[in-house]
Amino acid sequence: MTVTVAVDTTGADLGPAEVAEGAKLAAARADVRIRLFGPEAELRAVVDGIAAIEVVDAPMSIAKAPDPALAVRSHPEASIVRAIRDVSSGDADTFVVAGATGPALAAGLMHVRRARGIHRPALALPLPTLGDPVTLVDVGANVEARPDHLVQFGFMGAALARTVLGVERPRVALLSNGEEPTKGTPDVVEVHRLLSERLAGHPHIEWVGNIEGNLVTTGVADVVVTDGFTGNVALKLMEGVSQTVVSGVRQAATSNPMAMLGGLLLKPALNRFKASIDPERSGGAYLLGLRSLGVVPHGRFTREGFARAIVLAAQGHERQVTDLIHRDLEDAGALRRPPAAVAAPAGDAVAAAAADAGSGPDRVNG
Amino acid sequence: MTVTVAVDTTGADLGPAEVAEGAKLAAARADVRIRLFGPEAELRAVVDGIAAIEVVDAPMSIAKAPDPALAVRSHPEASIVRAIRDVSSGDADTFVVAGATGPALAAGLMHVRRARGIHRPALALPLPTLGDPVTLVDVGANVEARPDHLVQFGFMGAALARTVLGVERPRVALLSNGEEPTKGTPDVVEVHRLLSERLAGHPHIEWVGNIEGNLVTTGVADVVVTDGFTGNVALKLMEGVSQTVVSGVRQAATSNPMAMLGGLLLKPALNRFKASIDPERSGGAYLLGLRSLGVVPHGRFTREGFARAIVLAAQGHERQVTDLIHRDLEDAGALRRPPAAVAAPAGDAVAAAAADAGSGPDRVNG
Repeated sequence: MTVTVAVDTTGADLGPAEVAEGAKLAAARADVRIRLFGPEAELRAVVDGIAAIEVVDAPMSIAKAPDPALAVRSHPEASIVRAIRDVSSGDADTFVVAGATGPALAAGLMHVRRARGIHRPALALPLPTLGDPVTLVDVGANVEARPDHLVQFGFMGAALARTVLGVERPRVALLSNGEEPTKGTPDVVEVHRLLSERLAGHPHIEWVGNIEGNLVTTGVADVVVTDGFTGNVALKLMEGVSQTVVSGVRQAATSNPMAMLGGLLLKPALNRFKASIDPERSGGAYLLGLRSLGVVPHGRFTREGFARAIVLAAQGHERQVTDLIHRDLEDAGALRRPPAAVAAPAGDAVAAAAADAGSGPDRVNG
Repeated sequence: MTVTVAVDTTGADLGPAEVAEGAKLAAARADVRIRLFGPEAELRAVVDGIAAIEVVDAPMSIAKAPDPALAVRSHPEASIVRAIRDVSSGDADTFVVAGATGPALAAGLMHVRRARGIHRPALALPLPTLGDPVTLVDVGANVEARPDHLVQFGFMGAALARTVLGVERPRVALLSNGEEPTKGTPDVVEVHRLLSERLAGHPHIEWVGNIEGNLVTTGVADVVVTDGFTGNVALKLMEGVSQTVVSGVRQAATSNPMAMLGGLLLKPALNRFKASIDPERSGGAYLLGLRSLGVVPHGRFTREGFARAIVLAAQGHERQVTDLIHRDLEDAGALRRPPAAVAAPAGDAVAAAAADAGSGPDRVNG
C-alpha cells in the first residue's frame, strides 16, 4: 500500500526548496506519494518530473505566527492548514509540517481532530543519545495535564517506539524527582500508581517506574513520560547544556597551539560522535493522539532530516500507530469515556478539542 | 567578628577526615571558628592543635537515612542534628552539612526553624557554567509550591547572589516554556505577574522575565526561579547530559590512534575547562529561609569544596543574608502575613514547618 504524505514546506529555516529536496530523497527511498504545499515555482524547480511528488501552490506561511490557533482559524489558505486538511479530506494519510509545532498542533486539532478516546494529543520527541533515542512525551502540547492524560502519553509513546522507532518491547518510565513511587507532586504520584497498575505484566510494554533527570539520557528507558511544561523545560535545558559543553570543548581546543593540534586530530572522531547523536535521525517531534499521525521536523533540519520525517510518517501510518494506541488503551481500560450526554455536534467537539489544548499550543521547534 | 560554623562531617563520600581537611583549609583562609561534628578520633587526627577548630564527638550518621524527617526526630544524637542544634542554641552562627540535603532540611526546619515571614525554605544551587554561576532555586526542598512561595524564592536567590556569590545587581528570571508572560502553567503565569510587579524598578535586583531551559546556562540571568519538582528534574538532567556529552567525547578520543593522540594533546586544555566549571567552586546548595543560613556541599566533594562551603557559609552570615532577605521581602510587601489568631505554641510551629516541607525533604545531593 502506498502511503500519501502531505508535507508543508514553509517553516524550514533553509527555505521550502530544502524540504522539497528532502521529499525527493524520501520518494527515492520508500513507497510514498508526497503532496508538497508551498510556493509552487520554488518547489517545482526541485521536484518537477518526479512521478511520486505533486506540488500544491500554497505560498502563505503561518509558521511564525505569534498566535498559532488564531492564525489557523483566520488563514484557511495557509500552507500548513491546507496540508493538514489534505489529511482530513482523505487526500493524504499523514502529514509532515516543517518547523511549526504550534500551528501544526492547532490545525491538527481543528481539522484532523482528536482520535476517539484520547484526552489530549501530545508531542513525543525522540532525543538523540549515545545509544538508541529516548522518546520524551509530552514536550509541550499540554502545559497542564491530568494524571489520566499522562497515562495515555505513556501508551502513545510506547506505540510510537514500536511502530516508528523499531523498539520491540519499549521500556516506559515516569520522570520524577526520585525513584520511589511516593516521589513527585501528587499528580506524579498518581500517574505512577496508574501506570504501575496498567503496565504490570503488560504483553509488550515494560514498566520501569520513576526515573530522575540524570537517567533520561542513559538508556534505562525508551519512553519517558512527563507533562508538557516539565517536558518542554527539560528539552530546552538539554539543548542548552549540550551547546554549553560543546562550546566549552571548542574553546579549549583553540586555547593554545598544542590544544589546536589536538583538536584537529580529534576532529574526525568528534564529527562521527556528533553524527551519531544527530537529532535529524529520528525525524522530529511526533504529534500523537489525533486521528492521523503527524510529524514536525525541526525548522533547522536539512533535507536529510525532512526525508527521514516523511519516511517515518509513512511508516507510522503503515504500521497503524493510531490503531495500536487505541487498542492498547482499550485493553488497559485507559480510554477516555464518552460524555454521559449525547454526542456534541461537530462544531462543539472542535471547540472542546481546541480548548483542551490549554493556553494555546506551545512551540517546541522553530 | 569571627563567625562560628557548625560542620557535620559524616555524609562525605571520602569520609569525615576529608571534611576535616576542608575545615583546616577554611581556617587558614578566613576568620572563622569551626565546630566539627563526627567521629572524634578520626577528626582529631587531622585538625588537632588548630586553635580555630573544635571537635565534637558525634559518630552517628543519618546522612543516608531513607526517611530523613523520621531519622532527625528519632536520633537527636546524630551528628547532623547536633551540628544544626549548635546553631539554634547559639553556639554556632551557621551550619554546613556535607552530602545530606534531606536530613539538613528536616533538622533545619525542626531546630533552626523558618525565618519570620517566610513561607517555605528553599534550596538554591549555584550551577557551574562557562561564565559566572547561575543560581537555580528551588532545586528540591518544595515539590509543591504556591506562587507566593516562588516569589520569595526569587528574593532569596537574589540575596544569596549579592552576599555570597558577589553579584552586585542580580538578574532574576523565571523558568518557563516560553518568554511571553502568558507562557507556563497558571501558577507560573501568576508568579510572572507578581515578580513583574515587585521587581519593576527595584533598586538592586533586575527582573529578566521568563526564560526557557536553553538559556539557563548561557548567563542571561544570575538567579533562575522554579518550583522544587521542576528544579530537581532540571538539575539532574543537566548532570546527566553533561556526563553523556563528556563520555561521548571521551569515547571519540579513544576510538583510533590519531584521535587518541589528539585527545592527549587536548587534555590539559580540557582539564582547565573542567576546572572552570567545577561544582565545588560555589560551595554547594544553600538552604535559605531559615533563621540562619545553611550550606550543603555535595557528598562527592573533596576538601577544596568543603573549605569553600565553610568560608561561604561564614561570608553569608557576616553579610547578613538572612536579614537582607527579610528586608527585601518586607520592602516588596512579600512577607508571609502572620496568622490572624494568636501565635501558636512553639511545638505547633515546628509541626507546621515540618508539614510545610511537603512530602518530606528531597535529596538533591548524595
